[in-house]
Amino acid sequence: MTTSSPVTGALAAELQRALLARGETVAAAESLTAGLFCATLASVPGASATLRGGAVVYATDLKSALAGVPEELLAEHGPVSPQTAAALAEGIRLRCGSTWGVGLTGVAGPDPVDGHGPGRVYLGVSDGERTDVAELDLPGDRSAVRAGAVAAACRSLLDRLG
Amino acid sequence: MTTSSPVTGALAAELQRALLARGETVAAAESLTAGLFCATLASVPGASATLRGGAVVYATDLKSALAGVPEELLAEHGPVSPQTAAALAEGIRLRCGSTWGVGLTGVAGPDPVDGHGPGRVYLGVSDGERTDVAELDLPGDRSAVRAGAVAAACRSLLDRLG
Repeated sequence: MTTSSPVTGALAAELQRALLARGETVAAAESLTAGLFCATLASVPGASATLRGGAVVYATDLKSALAGVPEELLAEHGPVSPQTAAALAEGIRLRCGSTWGVGLTGVAGPDPVDGHGPGRVYLGVSDGERTDVAELDLPGDRSAVRAGAVAAACRSLLDRLG
Repeated sequence: MTTSSPVTGALAAELQRALLARGETVAAAESLTAGLFCATLASVPGASATLRGGAVVYATDLKSALAGVPEELLAEHGPVSPQTAAALAEGIRLRCGSTWGVGLTGVAGPDPVDGHGPGRVYLGVSDGERTDVAELDLPGDRSAVRAGAVAAACRSLLDRLG
């Protein structure tokens, strides 16, 4: 069955402790990871105190319908872009009423998407006042890229939580 | 990192083939699995042809906000109930514009929720005309219960696809 590695599981547990200490919550809008970030956070017992939920926005139109990304932004910059990652983070935060919003979009592979090669991932993290976007080039196959994106999101949010 | 077992991965691949053969799509609203069903489907290359997306409805109020479950239904039957599983499946199907909707709610453990013990899961599958709900009692720890729920959802949808 599906299991978390000790590495990702430890990151998720550390993130839960950091959020609990501040009384804060998180939500995520996920494209290439398709729910794996939220599912990893939920692997830690007691996750309901810090994880509100999120959206799996695999189809492009769902990035607007479920996470509130403006259609014009998608048309101008494309679904795999820093602008879309930022809008996913900001939009899902508002829709879920969480302290933090995380947005993940990119190319898991094996085929390129819109001129972006496998491994290219954009990660947005927002608290409503500041939105950071990271551009990542993750190594490995489809599974490694998706797992690497989840780990990067955990680390990025931990950095912001200080 | 997070990986799918051969068993669940094979089920996801079989499900993708069955949906592709019929030109149909799926979306899911997930509570206890928190995105693991969608993430498992997305582990198969080419998933975008059959997986539209979904919602992670970990917090009770998000079952209404993201998946359209009526608040009165939640108040009357509770988040862990066959009625909620059916409403999650029907609601997410409409919001995502998919052929099929899957709803998963239950208790991953280790603690009981609303009088339901760990392992109790309700699974809804809807095509808009007929909604089936299964009551499951899954063995094992938190991780096994969540993985078992994902596998059960794959098998249930495969049965409906005949």
